[in-house]
Amino acid sequence: MGISEYISVWDALTDDERRILLAASKEKIFQKGEILHNGSADCTGLIIVQSGQLRAFTVSAEGREITLYRLLERDICLFSASCIMNSIQFELTVTAEKDTRAFVIAPEAYKRVMRTSAALANYTNEIMAGRFSDVMWLIDQVIWKSFDKRLAEFLLNEANMDGTHILRITHETIGNHLGNPREVVTRMLRHFQDEGYVKLSRGTVEIIDPQALAELCR
Amino acid sequence: MGISEYISVWDALTDDERRILLAASKEKIFQKGEILHNGSADCTGLIIVQSGQLRAFTVSAEGREITLYRLLERDICLFSASCIMNSIQFELTVTAEKDTRAFVIAPEAYKRVMRTSAALANYTNEIMAGRFSDVMWLIDQVIWKSFDKRLAEFLLNEANMDGTHILRITHETIGNHLGNPREVVTRMLRHFQDEGYVKLSRGTVEIIDPQALAELCR
Repeated sequence: MGISEYISVWDALTDDERRILLAASKEKIFQKGEILHNGSADCTGLIIVQSGQLRAFTVSAEGREITLYRLLERDICLFSASCIMNSIQFELTVTAEKDTRAFVIAPEAYKRVMRTSAALANYTNEIMAGRFSDVMWLIDQVIWKSFDKRLAEFLLNEANMDGTHILRITHETIGNHLGNPREVVTRMLRHFQDEGYVKLSRGTVEIIDPQALAELCR
Repeated sequence: MGISEYISVWDALTDDERRILLAASKEKIFQKGEILHNGSADCTGLIIVQSGQLRAFTVSAEGREITLYRLLERDICLFSASCIMNSIQFELTVTAEKDTRAFVIAPEAYKRVMRTSAALANYTNEIMAGRFSDVMWLIDQVIWKSFDKRLAEFLLNEANMDGTHILRITHETIGNHLGNPREVVTRMLRHFQDEGYVKLSRGTVEIIDPQALAELCR
Protein backbone atom coordinates (compact mmCIF):
# COMPACT_ATOMS: atom_id res chain seq x y z
CA MET A 1 0.00 0.00 0.00
CA GLY A 2 1.27 3.45 -0.87
CA ILE A 3 0.62 6.79 0.84
CA SER A 4 -2.45 7.21 -1.37
CA GLU A 5 -4.19 4.64 0.83
CA TYR A 6 -3.45 6.63 3.97
CA ILE A 7 -4.18 10.22 2.97
CA SER A 8 -7.95 10.39 2.90
CA VAL A 9 -8.03 13.44 0.61
CA TRP A 10 -5.78 11.83 -2.01
CA ASP A 11 -8.57 11.87 -4.62
CA ALA A 12 -8.94 15.61 -4.18
CA LEU A 13 -5.31 16.28 -5.13
CA THR A 14 -4.17 17.10 -8.65
CA ASP A 15 -1.82 14.76 -10.51
CA ASP A 16 0.99 17.20 -9.95
CA GLU A 17 0.37 17.40 -6.21
CA ARG A 18 0.28 13.61 -5.97
CA ARG A 19 3.55 13.33 -7.85
CA ILE A 20 5.25 15.77 -5.50
CA LEU A 21 4.10 13.88 -2.41
CA LEU A 22 5.01 10.48 -3.85
CA ALA A 23 8.48 11.62 -4.83
CA ALA A 24 9.04 13.05 -1.35
CA SER A 25 7.89 10.02 0.63
CA LYS A 26 9.88 7.00 1.67
CA GLU A 27 9.23 3.97 3.78
CA LYS A 28 11.15 3.61 7.01
CA ILE A 29 11.43 1.11 9.82
CA PHE A 30 11.87 2.47 13.34
CA GLN A 31 13.11 0.09 16.03
CA LYS A 32 11.31 -0.09 19.35
CA GLY A 33 12.77 2.62 21.58
CA GLU A 34 14.11 4.69 18.70
CA ILE A 35 13.59 8.44 18.88
CA LEU A 36 11.99 9.68 15.66
CA HIS A 37 11.73 13.31 16.52
CA ASN A 38 13.22 15.42 19.26
CA GLY A 39 12.18 19.01 19.87
CA SER A 40 11.35 21.86 17.57
CA ALA A 41 14.79 22.16 15.97
CA ASP A 42 14.17 18.79 14.37
CA CYS A 43 11.98 18.66 11.27
CA THR A 44 11.93 14.99 10.45
CA GLY A 45 8.91 15.08 8.18
CA LEU A 46 5.32 14.03 8.26
CA ILE A 47 5.07 10.48 9.55
CA ILE A 48 2.27 8.12 8.56
CA VAL A 49 2.16 4.96 10.66
CA GLN A 50 1.67 1.76 8.66
CA SER A 51 2.10 -0.59 11.59
CA GLY A 52 3.49 -0.37 15.09
CA GLN A 53 3.06 2.37 17.67
CA LEU A 54 4.49 5.81 18.34
CA ARG A 55 4.32 7.95 21.45
CA ALA A 56 4.42 11.76 21.54
CA PHE A 57 5.40 13.30 24.85
CA THR A 58 6.99 16.31 26.49
CA VAL A 59 9.82 16.19 28.96
CA SER A 60 10.21 18.40 32.01
CA ALA A 61 13.46 20.05 33.01
CA GLU A 62 13.79 17.33 35.65
CA GLY A 63 13.38 14.61 33.04
CA ARG A 64 9.81 13.62 33.87
CA GLU A 65 7.65 12.74 30.89
CA ILE A 66 4.00 13.04 30.11
CA THR A 67 2.36 11.29 27.18
CA LEU A 68 0.42 13.71 24.99
CA TYR A 69 -0.95 11.11 22.62
CA ARG A 70 -0.14 7.86 20.89
CA LEU A 71 -0.12 7.15 17.18
CA LEU A 72 -1.31 3.81 15.92
CA GLU A 73 -1.84 2.33 12.46
CA ARG A 74 -3.03 4.95 9.95
CA ASP A 75 -2.33 7.82 12.33
CA ILE A 76 -0.38 10.80 11.12
CA CYS A 77 2.27 12.62 13.09
CA LEU A 78 2.15 16.29 12.20
CA PHE A 79 4.46 17.77 14.79
CA SER A 80 7.42 15.72 13.61
CA ALA A 81 7.12 18.09 10.65
CA SER A 82 6.67 21.19 12.79
CA CYS A 83 8.54 23.34 10.27
CA ILE A 84 5.57 23.12 7.89
CA MET A 85 3.94 25.82 10.03
CA ASN A 86 5.58 28.91 11.46
CA SER A 87 3.28 29.05 14.45
CA ILE A 88 4.17 25.64 15.86
CA GLN A 89 6.45 26.73 18.64
CA PHE A 90 6.69 24.00 21.16
CA GLU A 91 8.81 20.95 21.65
CA LEU A 92 7.77 17.39 21.78
CA THR A 93 9.51 14.09 21.42
CA VAL A 94 8.27 11.15 19.40
CA THR A 95 9.55 7.62 19.99
CA ALA A 96 8.65 4.20 18.68
CA GLU A 97 6.95 2.15 21.41
CA LYS A 98 6.92 -0.89 19.16
CA ASP A 99 8.83 -1.69 15.99
CA THR A 100 7.13 0.64 13.56
CA ARG A 101 6.86 0.80 9.78
CA ALA A 102 5.98 4.24 8.50
CA PHE A 103 6.03 6.57 5.56
CA VAL A 104 8.01 9.74 6.03
CA ILE A 105 7.08 12.66 3.77
CA ALA A 106 9.68 15.41 3.41
CA PRO A 107 8.33 18.58 5.09
CA GLU A 108 9.13 20.98 2.21
CA ALA A 109 7.13 18.87 -0.25
CA TYR A 110 4.17 18.57 2.10
CA LYS A 111 4.22 22.29 2.76
CA ARG A 112 4.40 23.01 -0.96
CA VAL A 113 1.32 20.92 -1.74
CA MET A 114 -0.54 22.29 1.26
CA ARG A 115 -0.02 25.79 -0.11
CA THR A 116 -1.97 25.03 -3.28
CA SER A 117 -4.38 22.36 -2.11
CA ALA A 118 -7.29 23.46 0.08
CA ALA A 119 -8.09 19.78 0.53
CA LEU A 120 -4.69 18.95 2.01
CA ALA A 121 -4.66 22.13 4.11
CA ASN A 122 -8.07 21.32 5.58
CA TYR A 123 -7.04 17.73 6.13
CA THR A 124 -3.99 18.98 8.04
CA ASN A 125 -6.25 21.31 10.02
CA GLU A 126 -8.37 18.39 11.13
CA ILE A 127 -5.33 16.39 12.21
CA MET A 128 -4.05 19.30 14.26
CA ALA A 129 -7.48 19.94 15.80
CA GLY A 130 -7.59 16.27 16.81
CA ARG A 131 -4.24 16.49 18.58
CA PHE A 132 -5.24 19.77 20.15
CA SER A 133 -8.32 18.06 21.53
CA ASP A 134 -6.14 15.26 22.96
CA VAL A 135 -3.97 17.79 24.76
CA MET A 136 -6.95 19.77 26.04
CA TRP A 137 -8.43 16.54 27.36
CA LEU A 138 -5.19 15.91 29.21
CA ILE A 139 -5.30 19.39 30.76
CA ASP A 140 -8.91 18.92 31.69
CA GLN A 141 -8.58 15.49 33.28
CA VAL A 142 -5.12 15.44 34.74
CA ILE A 143 -4.86 19.01 35.93
CA TRP A 144 -8.37 20.07 36.66
CA LYS A 145 -10.45 17.21 37.72
CA SER A 146 -7.64 15.19 39.27
CA PHE A 147 -9.48 12.19 37.96
CA ASP A 148 -6.14 10.48 37.51
CA LYS A 149 -5.58 10.51 41.27
CA ARG A 150 -9.06 9.28 42.03
CA LEU A 151 -8.77 6.46 39.53
CA ALA A 152 -5.29 5.45 40.73
CA GLU A 153 -6.52 5.36 44.32
CA PHE A 154 -9.53 3.30 43.34
CA LEU A 155 -7.45 0.72 41.45
CA LEU A 156 -4.98 0.33 44.32
CA ASN A 157 -7.79 -0.06 46.84
CA GLU A 158 -9.53 -2.69 44.75
CA ALA A 159 -6.28 -4.62 44.28
CA ASN A 160 -5.63 -4.45 47.98
CA MET A 161 -9.12 -5.67 48.85
CA ASP A 162 -9.04 -8.52 46.34
CA GLY A 163 -5.43 -9.45 47.09
CA THR A 164 -4.58 -9.49 43.40
CA HIS A 165 -3.06 -7.16 40.84
CA ILE A 166 -5.43 -8.35 38.13
CA LEU A 167 -8.80 -6.69 38.62
CA ARG A 168 -11.81 -8.23 36.93
CA ILE A 169 -13.93 -5.15 36.54
CA THR A 170 -15.55 -3.29 33.67
CA HIS A 171 -14.88 0.33 32.86
CA GLU A 172 -18.58 0.95 33.36
CA THR A 173 -18.44 -0.36 36.91
CA ILE A 174 -15.42 1.79 37.70
CA GLY A 175 -17.28 4.76 36.28
CA ASN A 176 -20.21 4.00 38.53
CA HIS A 177 -17.92 3.88 41.53
CA LEU A 178 -16.30 7.18 40.74
CA GLY A 179 -19.26 9.02 39.30
CA ASN A 180 -17.76 9.38 35.82
CA PRO A 181 -19.03 8.26 32.44
CA ARG A 182 -17.55 5.03 31.09
CA GLU A 183 -15.78 6.85 28.24
CA VAL A 184 -13.84 8.99 30.69
CA VAL A 185 -12.73 5.89 32.60
CA THR A 186 -11.68 4.15 29.38
CA ARG A 187 -9.71 7.14 28.22
CA MET A 188 -7.88 7.54 31.53
CA LEU A 189 -7.17 3.80 31.74
CA ARG A 190 -5.66 4.00 28.25
CA HIS A 191 -3.57 6.91 29.40
CA PHE A 192 -2.43 4.81 32.38
CA GLN A 193 -1.60 2.03 29.92
CA ASP A 194 0.40 4.46 27.77
CA GLU A 195 2.37 5.39 30.86
CA GLY A 196 3.00 1.73 31.69
CA TYR A 197 0.98 1.76 34.92
CA VAL A 198 -1.58 -0.85 33.88
CA LYS A 199 -2.27 -3.34 31.14
CA LEU A 200 -5.78 -3.59 29.76
CA SER A 201 -7.50 -6.56 28.29
CA ARG A 202 -11.10 -7.55 27.88
CA GLY A 203 -12.79 -7.36 31.28
CA THR A 204 -9.56 -6.91 33.27
CA VAL A 205 -7.24 -4.19 34.43
CA GLU A 206 -3.82 -5.49 35.39
CA ILE A 207 -1.75 -3.28 37.66
CA ILE A 208 1.85 -3.30 36.45
CA ASP A 209 3.37 -0.39 38.31
CA PRO A 210 1.60 0.00 41.67
CA GLN A 211 4.33 2.34 42.89
CA ALA A 212 3.65 4.82 40.09
CA LEU A 213 -0.07 4.69 40.87
CA ALA A 214 0.65 5.26 44.54
CA GLU A 215 2.78 8.25 43.66
CA LEU A 216 -0.08 9.68 41.60
CA CYS A 217 -2.34 9.56 44.66
CA ARG A 218 -0.08 11.78 46.70
CA MET B 1 -12.09 49.21 8.47
CA GLY B 2 -13.71 46.05 7.19
CA ILE B 3 -12.70 42.42 7.68
CA SER B 4 -10.44 42.72 4.64
CA GLU B 5 -8.04 44.72 6.80
CA TYR B 6 -7.86 41.97 9.38
CA ILE B 7 -7.59 38.79 7.33
CA SER B 8 -4.02 38.80 6.07
CA VAL B 9 -4.74 36.44 3.17
CA TRP B 10 -7.62 38.58 1.86
CA ASP B 11 -5.76 39.31 -1.39
CA ALA B 12 -5.41 35.60 -2.07
CA LEU B 13 -9.19 35.06 -2.00
CA THR B 14 -11.36 35.12 -5.11
CA ASP B 15 -14.07 37.76 -5.53
CA ASP B 16 -16.68 35.12 -4.81
CA GLU B 17 -14.97 34.01 -1.61
CA ARG B 18 -14.66 37.62 -0.43
CA ARG B 19 -18.33 38.22 -1.11
CA ILE B 20 -19.32 35.17 0.93
CA LEU B 21 -17.23 36.27 3.90
CA LEU B 22 -18.40 39.88 3.73
CA ALA B 23 -22.05 38.87 3.57
CA ALA B 24 -21.59 36.59 6.57
CA SER B 25 -19.79 39.04 8.82
CA LYS B 26 -21.27 41.60 11.15
CA GLU B 27 -19.91 44.01 13.67
CA LYS B 28 -20.76 43.46 17.31
CA ILE B 29 -20.09 45.14 20.62
CA PHE B 30 -19.52 42.91 23.63
CA GLN B 31 -19.80 44.47 27.07
CA LYS B 32 -17.08 43.88 29.63
CA GLY B 33 -17.90 40.63 31.42
CA GLU B 34 -20.12 39.32 28.65
CA ILE B 35 -19.71 35.66 27.72
CA LEU B 36 -19.19 35.36 23.96
CA HIS B 37 -18.81 31.65 23.74
CA ASN B 38 -19.48 28.85 26.17
CA GLY B 39 -18.43 25.27 25.49
CA SER B 40 -18.48 23.12 22.41
CA ALA B 41 -22.25 23.11 21.90
CA ASP B 42 -21.99 26.79 21.10
CA CYS B 43 -20.83 27.80 17.62
CA THR B 44 -20.89 31.57 17.78
CA GLY B 45 -18.68 32.18 14.77
CA LEU B 46 -15.20 33.33 14.04
CA ILE B 47 -14.44 36.44 16.07
CA ILE B 48 -11.98 39.11 14.92
CA VAL B 49 -11.14 41.61 17.64
CA GLN B 50 -11.16 45.26 16.47
CA SER B 51 -10.61 46.76 19.90
CA GLY B 52 -10.90 45.56 23.46
CA GLN B 53 -9.80 42.30 25.01
CA LEU B 54 -11.10 38.75 25.16
CA ARG B 55 -10.06 35.89 27.42
CA ALA B 56 -10.29 32.18 26.56
CA PHE B 57 -10.28 29.81 29.50
CA THR B 58 -11.41 26.41 30.71
CA VAL B 59 -13.36 25.79 33.87
CA SER B 60 -12.89 22.84 36.20
CA ALA B 61 -15.76 20.86 37.68
CA GLU B 62 -15.17 22.79 40.92
CA GLY B 63 -15.47 26.10 39.09
CA ARG B 64 -11.79 27.01 39.04
CA GLU B 65 -10.60 28.72 35.88
CA ILE B 66 -7.34 28.80 33.98
CA THR B 67 -6.60 31.28 31.24
CA LEU B 68 -5.49 29.59 28.04
CA TYR B 69 -4.80 32.76 26.12
CA ARG B 70 -5.97 36.33 25.60
CA LEU B 71 -7.10 37.95 22.38
CA LEU B 72 -6.23 41.55 21.71
CA GLU B 73 -6.70 43.87 18.76
CA ARG B 74 -6.41 42.03 15.42
CA ASP B 75 -6.45 38.60 17.09
CA ILE B 76 -8.80 35.96 15.80
CA CYS B 77 -10.78 33.58 17.95
CA LEU B 78 -11.07 30.28 16.15
CA PHE B 79 -12.56 28.09 18.83
CA SER B 80 -15.65 30.25 19.16
CA ALA B 81 -16.36 28.72 15.74
CA SER B 82 -15.41 25.20 16.77
CA CYS B 83 -18.03 23.69 14.47
CA ILE B 84 -15.91 24.65 11.45
CA MET B 85 -13.82 21.57 12.24
CA ASN B 86 -15.06 18.14 13.26
CA SER B 87 -11.98 17.34 15.26
CA ILE B 88 -12.27 20.23 17.71
CA GLN B 89 -13.66 18.39 20.67
CA PHE B 90 -13.03 20.38 23.75
CA GLU B 91 -14.77 23.09 25.64
CA LEU B 92 -13.62 26.55 26.35
CA THR B 93 -15.25 29.75 27.39
CA VAL B 94 -14.57 33.15 25.90
CA THR B 95 -15.49 36.36 27.73
CA ALA B 96 -14.90 40.04 27.14
CA GLU B 97 -12.40 41.38 29.67
CA LYS B 98 -12.94 44.89 28.36
CA ASP B 99 -15.67 46.40 26.22
CA THR B 100 -14.87 44.84 22.89
CA ARG B 101 -15.75 45.66 19.30
CA ALA B 102 -15.41 42.70 16.97
CA PHE B 103 -16.43 41.20 13.69
CA VAL B 104 -18.28 37.92 13.90
CA ILE B 105 -18.19 35.73 10.80
CA ALA B 106 -20.86 33.05 10.54
CA PRO B 107 -19.19 29.63 10.86
CA GLU B 108 -20.88 28.01 7.84
CA ALA B 109 -19.66 30.76 5.53
CA TYR B 110 -16.12 30.58 6.86
CA LYS B 111 -16.12 26.81 6.54
CA ARG B 112 -17.42 27.07 2.99
CA VAL B 113 -14.65 29.42 1.89
CA MET B 114 -12.03 27.39 3.73
CA ARG B 115 -13.07 24.34 1.75
CA THR B 116 -12.14 25.98 -1.56
CA SER B 117 -9.38 28.36 -0.52
CA ALA B 118 -6.00 26.86 0.33
CA ALA B 119 -4.95 30.34 1.45
CA LEU B 120 -7.71 30.62 4.05
CA ALA B 121 -7.24 27.00 5.16
CA ASN B 122 -3.51 27.54 5.69
CA TYR B 123 -4.19 30.82 7.43
CA THR B 124 -6.57 28.99 9.79
CA ASN B 125 -3.90 26.33 10.32
CA GLU B 126 -1.45 28.96 11.45
CA ILE B 127 -3.95 30.49 13.86
CA MET B 128 -4.65 27.10 15.39
CA ALA B 129 -0.95 26.24 15.61
CA GLY B 130 -0.40 29.52 17.46
CA ARG B 131 -3.09 28.73 20.03
CA PHE B 132 -1.76 25.19 20.33
CA SER B 133 1.65 26.64 21.11
CA ASP B 134 0.11 28.88 23.80
CA VAL B 135 -1.51 25.90 25.45
CA MET B 136 1.64 23.78 25.24
CA TRP B 137 3.54 26.64 26.83
CA LEU B 138 1.05 26.64 29.67
CA ILE B 139 1.48 22.89 30.17
CA ASP B 140 5.21 23.26 30.06
CA GLN B 141 5.50 26.15 32.49
CA VAL B 142 2.66 25.67 34.90
CA ILE B 143 2.62 21.91 35.15
CA TRP B 144 6.14 20.85 34.50
CA LYS B 145 8.53 23.44 35.58
CA SER B 146 6.41 24.89 38.37
CA PHE B 147 7.89 28.21 37.42
CA ASP B 148 4.60 29.82 38.44
CA LYS B 149 5.22 28.80 42.05
CA ARG B 150 8.79 29.96 42.04
CA LEU B 151 7.87 33.32 40.55
CA ALA B 152 4.94 33.82 42.96
CA GLU B 153 7.18 33.05 45.91
CA PHE B 154 9.84 35.43 44.64
CA LEU B 155 7.37 38.29 44.20
CA LEU B 156 5.89 37.82 47.67
CA ASN B 157 9.33 37.67 49.25
CA GLU B 158 10.44 40.83 47.50
CA ALA B 159 7.26 42.65 48.52
CA ASN B 160 7.74 41.49 52.08
CA MET B 161 11.35 42.62 52.17
CA ASP B 162 10.61 45.99 50.61
CA GLY B 163 7.43 46.53 52.62
CA THR B 164 5.53 47.50 49.48
CA HIS B 165 3.22 45.85 46.99
CA ILE B 166 4.73 47.80 44.11
CA LEU B 167 8.04 46.25 43.12
CA ARG B 168 10.48 48.29 41.09
CA ILE B 169 12.26 45.52 39.30
CA THR B 170 12.91 44.55 35.70
CA HIS B 171 11.92 41.23 34.20
CA GLU B 172 15.56 40.68 33.41
CA THR B 173 16.54 41.02 37.06
CA ILE B 174 13.81 38.60 38.12
CA GLY B 175 15.08 36.18 35.50
CA ASN B 176 18.57 36.49 36.90
CA HIS B 177 17.28 35.72 40.37
CA LEU B 178 15.39 32.65 39.25
CA GLY B 179 17.71 31.39 36.57
CA ASN B 180 15.24 31.86 33.73
CA PRO B 181 15.49 33.87 30.53
CA ARG B 182 13.77 37.26 30.56
CA GLU B 183 11.17 36.15 27.98
CA VAL B 184 9.98 33.38 30.26
CA VAL B 185 9.60 35.83 33.15
CA THR B 186 7.70 38.29 30.96
CA ARG B 187 5.37 35.60 29.69
CA MET B 188 4.61 34.28 33.16
CA LEU B 189 4.12 37.80 34.55
CA ARG B 190 1.64 38.45 31.73
CA HIS B 191 -0.11 35.23 32.65
CA PHE B 192 -0.25 36.46 36.28
CA GLN B 193 -1.68 39.72 34.99
CA ASP B 194 -4.31 37.84 32.98
CA GLU B 195 -5.31 36.06 36.16
CA GLY B 196 -5.52 39.34 38.06
CA TYR B 197 -2.64 38.59 40.43
CA VAL B 198 -0.42 41.48 39.38
CA LYS B 199 -0.51 44.63 37.32
CA LEU B 200 2.44 45.38 35.08
CA SER B 201 3.74 48.71 33.99
CA ARG B 202 7.08 49.98 32.80
CA GLY B 203 9.68 48.98 35.38
CA THR B 204 7.20 47.87 38.03
CA VAL B 205 5.24 44.82 39.08
CA GLU B 206 2.30 45.67 41.32
CA ILE B 207 0.93 42.85 43.45
CA ILE B 208 -2.84 43.03 43.41
CA ASP B 209 -3.86 39.67 44.81
CA PRO B 210 -1.18 38.49 47.28
CA GLN B 211 -3.51 35.79 48.58
CA ALA B 212 -3.77 34.17 45.15
CA LEU B 213 0.02 34.29 44.81
CA ALA B 214 0.40 32.74 48.27
CA GLU B 215 -1.99 29.97 47.30
CA LEU B 216 0.09 29.26 44.19
CA CYS B 217 3.15 28.69 46.38
CA ARG B 218 1.51 25.95 48.34
